[in-house]
This record gives sequence, structure tokens and C-alpha cells, in this order.
Amino acid sequence: MGEFELIERFFTRAPRRSPLGVGDDCALLQPRAGMQLAVSSDMLVEGRHFLSTVDPRRLGHKALAVNLSDLAACGAEPLAFTLALALPAADEAWLGAFAEGLFALADAHGCELVGGDTTRGPLCIGITVFGEVPAGGALLRSGARPGDDVWVSGTLGDARLALEAFRGTVSLPQPVFEAARARMEQPTPRATLGLALRGIASAAVDISDGLLGDLGHVLRRSAVGATVDADAAAALLGVRALGWQAPVETMRDLALAGGDDYELAFTAPAAQRDAVLAAGRAAATAVTRIGRIEAEPGLRIVDGHGAPIQRDWQGFDHFR
Amino acid sequence: MGEFELIERFFTRAPRRSPLGVGDDCALLQPRAGMQLAVSSDMLVEGRHFLSTVDPRRLGHKALAVNLSDLAACGAEPLAFTLALALPAADEAWLGAFAEGLFALADAHGCELVGGDTTRGPLCIGITVFGEVPAGGALLRSGARPGDDVWVSGTLGDARLALEAFRGTVSLPQPVFEAARARMEQPTPRATLGLALRGIASAAVDISDGLLGDLGHVLRRSAVGATVDADAAAALLGVRALGWQAPVETMRDLALAGGDDYELAFTAPAAQRDAVLAAGRAAATAVTRIGRIEAEPGLRIVDGHGAPIQRDWQGFDHFR
Repeated sequence: MGEFELIERFFTRAPRRSPLGVGDDCALLQPRAGMQLAVSSDMLVEGRHFLSTVDPRRLGHKALAVNLSDLAACGAEPLAFTLALALPAADEAWLGAFAEGLFALADAHGCELVGGDTTRGPLCIGITVFGEVPAGGALLRSGARPGDDVWVSGTLGDARLALEAFRGTVSLPQPVFEAARARMEQPTPRATLGLALRGIASAAVDISDGLLGDLGHVLRRSAVGATVDADAAAALLGVRALGWQAPVETMRDLALAGGDDYELAFTAPAAQRDAVLAAGRAAATAVTRIGRIEAEPGLRIVDGHGAPIQRDWQGFDHFR
Repeated sequence: MGEFELIERFFTRAPRRSPLGVGDDCALLQPRAGMQLAVSSDMLVEGRHFLSTVDPRRLGHKALAVNLSDLAACGAEPLAFTLALALPAADEAWLGAFAEGLFALADAHGCELVGGDTTRGPLCIGITVFGEVPAGGALLRSGARPGDDVWVSGTLGDARLALEAFRGTVSLPQPVFEAARARMEQPTPRATLGLALRGIASAAVDISDGLLGDLGHVLRRSAVGATVDADAAAALLGVRALGWQAPVETMRDLALAGGDDYELAFTAPAAQRDAVLAAGRAAATAVTRIGRIEAEPGLRIVDGHGAPIQRDWQGFDHFR
């Protein structure tokens, strides 16, 4: 199967919203009047971002999900994406399943494939995603103010728990492992919530490297500090609903610094609490208050009783 | 050196035209009124698109050049790009040189880095480039009409000649090798020419896989055929100016099917010949007429006397 046949068979569909579909030198995009284009690029590398044994359907989902998560963090509505794919071989079953997972998520978000590139090489997936956001209306990392609440969406720490199970550092009952593994391999981008938070949240970031690390970006760019309740975060470990327990330190570590969550961490003025809860309901996504923005720089972690916790958490850093 | 320090040191500069620079979840882009955004993604993989021994300065140049070449083929004005980089290690000397080559070309074209991603992995470079083009004014592959001339910019075949020298299938005098190697490692995107051809050319494509293969895309999408003069193409081998000679079949092969040229192949009505030549002069880029579009489908190759040539040329295909 040649490169062009591969693109034709697996990645070509009729154009919908974009003025020109796949197959020319460039794709063309036209944001509606008054809208800006939000753009994000992520690259997933085998062995680093996913295991070679992953179901290609789930991989297709995840490759787009991590990019849609960036749009969500900006409050942008998904519009289109490009796909650059390096593959060791043109395996038809693998490509069919990958495309199926990719397009299922793309269709659920009205996000259209408009171009890309395929080549032979070590398995590597590069996606650039485009969304629309009203000019001046994007959620930025720089808008947090002292007195704002710190919120997170959904659940935390399950993806890292699955990774630790794969690494053999923890042993999990089968239903717990499957639930955690689904969070690792098929994260849910919070696109609807991101849209609903426009005009309500003061700052937002998506949690890819771990809550504390990513919240740290918000604090630095907003020139503020925060206190975060480690136990409120640890309560968000999804597999606790299946009865899974671990020492409290482990559950805090997973929730605060696990990474690969693709949830939103965001801030909003206390006066917006009802509006945030309403946005969560409208998006069918849990939102939980876990801390507070303060003028004093730095990140202070406390337990459920407000007592300070000292521990060295580091956001997972791909070059450390 | 961590991921964030790496981005800060080598890839962060003050934003210029884009509303928001590197460092948030998304970059924001706003085409001017009446303009569409042209988008193209390319991925370069070590061993496939470049040799591990390549000067990182030249690699930084080439990674962006191949994307700017796609914008040129659409007649789009470069605006911004994102960079996704998988690196085996954070080698400072390598990164510094790569960034230098990248930004030198970016600055020459007023094209701003607005976002991206770095990760550890096999060396793999993904760039998505954005340009502006008046709505409805993009040069497409689908616009060629019977009677149009077929033109190419610049020189053909030198990049492939250098590749063959690296492979050891040909031996070149040092000055010839260096000239050919520069064409392979530092192609010149024809951005200015692409802009100048808006409203003049009827169709355009950039030559990455070989003239015949890429012209084939224009013919298929335009539902036309063409006759191409192999000797007019072979005369465009740049190293002939240095006195290099080879059997005529070899020179035709290099020019017609060499690949990695990053020149433009384009079509224009015969009535536009003077306008095409003027566009070439304005862009300081040679433009040469090498054939003619015809209603009869297929691609017919003739020699300088108009006699048909039978030979199996295949555009270089990354999955063959």
C-alpha cells in the first residue's frame, strides 16, 4: 500500500465545514467573524506516551483527545485538525482501528481532519488541532486573582495508577485495573466544560503533567500563589468508587502529581461558585473546589484539616 | 535540562503578530479581514528525511522550509508555525544550532513560532505552518485547463543527486557534491514566487516527491493530462552550471523523478506568459516552461525534439 492509497483509504472523507478538504498542499480554514483560531500541537511517541501493546482504537482516540484537551483549556470550540503520522509499516488492521478511534472522537466533537502527512518511521503521531474562540474570550493561564477558588474537573490520578500497574509497582484487582487503564488509554477531553466556563473561569489549564505542575503554570503566569487541599484532590481518584484504597500518601501523590489526567484545573471568583456548578451540570462533568488563589507566591499543600503537608511533588517532566 | 527550561531557552521569543505567544495551552491566530488561513503539516523523521550526520542548523532550516514550500504552492503569505519535537536527548549544542537555522528562515519569511511540544523519543520533527491567503484566492491543484503551459521554478534533481552520492551510487567532484548537498539539506521555499503567482497561475503544487509524481496530483485533481519535455526539465539540473554531466537518461531521471526539490510546478494560461516571467523576475526566481496541459488524461513525456519517451518513472513514495 503506497502513501497516497493509505491516505485515500483511511484518512480521506468529504469536507464539511472547512472550505477545502484533505489533498491539496494546504488546508484552508476560515474562522467566523469576530472569532480567533486557537491552535495546539502535541506529539505522541511510542514507549513514551503509549505502550506498543495499546489497542490502536484507543490510541487513535487518545492522540486527538490530548489535543482537544488543550482547546478545552482555552474555552475554544473544536473545528479541525491535521495528522502527521510516522509508521513502521502500513498495517491495514492497525490503521483501520486507529482511524476508527480517531474519527469516533472527532465526530463526537465536530472536529474535521483537514490535512496531514504520512511517512515511514518509528511510530510517532503528531496532531495539530484548531478551535474557534471569540476574540478576547479565550481562557488563559494568566487570569487567576487572589481570592479565586481553584477547581478541577472529573477524576484525578487513575491514569498514573494504571501506568504504575503496567510498571509492576502496584498490583490491582482486575476491575480496578480496567477502569484505571481506560482513563489512561482513553481520556475524556473536557471540551463542553471548557466552552461552558467562558466568561466564568478566570484562568484554566489542562492537566497533562500532574495537577501541581500544571497549576504551577497558572500561578506563575498569573503572578499569584495558592493553597490546595491534598485530601480534596485525593478524594477524586476515580477507582475509589470501586472500593480501591491505598495509604493516604499514595492517593495524594496520584491525584496531585500523577499526570495524564486531561482534566481541567481552573480558577474562578468565589462569586461565580453557582455558575461553575451550573456549567459542570450543563457539561455533565463533575467540578470540585480544591483550593484557593492567594497573593503570596508559591503553592501550599494542606490536608483535609488545613494542616500543611511537606513533600516533594514534581510535575512529570518529559526531559527529567 | 527539563522540558520547560528547554522551551524557555531555545524556543521562546516575544510574540509579534499573533495575539498570544508560546506558553499557554493554545496559541491564538487571527487572520485579517477577508483572509483565509492556509495550514500544512509535515513530519521529518531521522533516516527517512534527513541523515543523522546533517548539520542541525541545516536541519532546522529544512524542517521549516518544506512547510513554507506548501504555503508557497497555495500562494499563502507565511504567518506562524508550531513545532513538535521528539529528541533522544536534550543536547544543548544541537538544540542551539537547530533553533538558529530554524529561526533564521522563519525571520526571513516573517513567520512566527507560536506553540508546540517537546518530548523524548526518536528524533522526529513535526511542523504545522499557517499562512494567509485572500478568501477564494488560494492556488489549488484543481485549476489546470487544457492549453495552459506547465512551468517549474528554479532547479530540479540536485537534491536527489546528493542523496545518490551519499548512497554511493554516484561519485561527484567536491564542488559539485557541496552544491547538490546544499540543495538537499537547505532547500529554498518559493514563498515570494507563490505570492506573485496569485491571480496568474491556474494551479500549483510543490515538488517534494518528484516533478512527475507531484504534477500527477494536479492532473488528477484538474481532470486533464499533459505533455512534458524531459530535456527542458533535465536542463534545470543546477549542477550542470558547474560542468557536471551524466548520460541523458540519468539527467532526465533526476529532474523528472528525483524528489526533495521544493520547487513549484504550476500551470498558467498561455496569455499569462509575460505575467509569469514578470512574477519570476519580481521574486528573483527562474521560471521555465516545460510542457502543456491537454484535455486527454495522462502524462506524456517527450524529448527535446518532441519524440515520445517510454520509461517507468515513479514519484518517490514513502510507503513503497
